[in-house]
Amino acid sequence: MDQRISLITLGVSDLDRSVGFYEALGWKPGNDWRAQDVAFFQCGGIAVALWSREELAADSTVADSGGWGGVTIAYNVGSPAEVDAVVAEAESAGANIGRAGAETPWGGYSAVFVDPDGHPWEVAHNPHWELAPDGSVTI
Amino acid sequence: MDQRISLITLGVSDLDRSVGFYEALGWKPGNDWRAQDVAFFQCGGIAVALWSREELAADSTVADSGGWGGVTIAYNVGSPAEVDAVVAEAESAGANIGRAGAETPWGGYSAVFVDPDGHPWEVAHNPHWELAPDGSVTI
Repeated sequence: MDQRISLITLGVSDLDRSVGFYEALGWKPGNDWRAQDVAFFQCGGIAVALWSREELAADSTVADSGGWGGVTIAYNVGSPAEVDAVVAEAESAGANIGRAGAETPWGGYSAVFVDPDGHPWEVAHNPHWELAPDGSVTI
Repeated sequence: MDQRISLITLGVSDLDRSVGFYEALGWKPGNDWRAQDVAFFQCGGIAVALWSREELAADSTVADSGGWGGVTIAYNVGSPAEVDAVVAEAESAGANIGRAGAETPWGGYSAVFVDPDGHPWEVAHNPHWELAPDGSVTI
């Protein structure tokens, strides 16, 4: 198994609402999501999907806890000011703010917003990682 | 907010065991994970992390359900035979097999394995997506 992933799927309860939230952040689905009942977003070399949480649980052969299940996505930016700007944009789009931007114990700056389906996103500035112009990170 | 992600963190209960599982699949941490108590794997332009689930929940400002929480990762390969090979490799490494390889309603072929912390991975051949030699996918 190569060291890579292809797709991250977030289970959602109302696909229209969830697509609307990510569209409000500036994202654009790359497929005919209304017809297919799943939305795919091209994110560099991987894809992010929004799909019925009930169907995702069945497809993933797991029982749904109904809450958070041990997975968090992070979005890195180039400065603390950009962290604050993204969090403000997410709040305007309807996200809950888990924690406002603040310095972290590891020498960076981060905040958390939570999407309409309860999926948390850490927005971070990590001065120890390289962030390329195309958005890719190098640890 | 750009259409991209930087990092996906999987919460784990025993970092040694979890790193060992992914190492058995051929992955290599890119940091001094024992000293830092978090393992980072470079995966193309993003990173995958393994970190204490308890600390991840607190950091993510969420309550931990204890089970699956609506997020599934997928790993795409070039053929049904490769799906079966990866699942066999995962099983040898100690994964539970959620479902064996089989044709899907969307015209592909996929299987699911579940890692030692209950995180499901879909292993898929999707003939509708382009899979580049470097492992990146195009929807």
